[in-house]
Amino acid sequence: MSSARANARDGAEATRVCPDYHAAVEMIGRRWSGAILWALSEGPHYFAELSQSIPGLSDRLLSRRLRELEQEGLVERSVHAGSPARVSYSLTDKGRELGPAIRELRAWAKRWNAGAARP
Amino acid sequence: MSSARANARDGAEATRVCPDYHAAVEMIGRRWSGAILWALSEGPHYFAELSQSIPGLSDRLLSRRLRELEQEGLVERSVHAGSPARVSYSLTDKGRELGPAIRELRAWAKRWNAGAARP
Repeated sequence: MSSARANARDGAEATRVCPDYHAAVEMIGRRWSGAILWALSEGPHYFAELSQSIPGLSDRLLSRRLRELEQEGLVERSVHAGSPARVSYSLTDKGRELGPAIRELRAWAKRWNAGAARP
Repeated sequence: MSSARANARDGAEATRVCPDYHAAVEMIGRRWSGAILWALSEGPHYFAELSQSIPGLSDRLLSRRLRELEQEGLVERSVHAGSPARVSYSLTDKGRELGPAIRELRAWAKRWNAGAARP
């Protein structure tokens, strides 16, 4: 407690949370986004495959999240000729570089059995 | 694309997203929770210090998030005798072990300037 106590006593400014980190943690933590990024970290997926990988996620919300992740530059969309044309999704470099953070979080989650602790 | 295409063709089950990871990413990504965990990763804080570290977060929502993080076993609360009594918050072992994931995410966020890319 000593540093907290000292800060409180002398009125020093508390360290502000890094805004880049703050934006990033809420972006990957947005409902279902972290799951989509995880699925795509295993490789490119067609829409139907993503939908299958993430039980409970509606197609409507999956489309919306994919559009957001595209806007954020994490995911790219490819259209494959054919009838009907098929659309696949993959991570960009920016998305792929989230890999170490996602893996650390997964390791933590497995260690602490985070799924069971959910309130 | 070869593996995505192969999966789609032979109808193999897509890999399900790990439920522990899924719970964890949405827990730390819940609005403001990631910021609170970050602030506490620097050491124990009194309530007022946390509030100062995270501009834009109301005291009401800060209290609520701290209670949730306590229930999830990430944060612990200590009451310090005095008049008025003061309450400080610190990370538990479980909370501290999120450190590597949080640091990886921060490194990524700084590299990609995630705060600016927010839609």
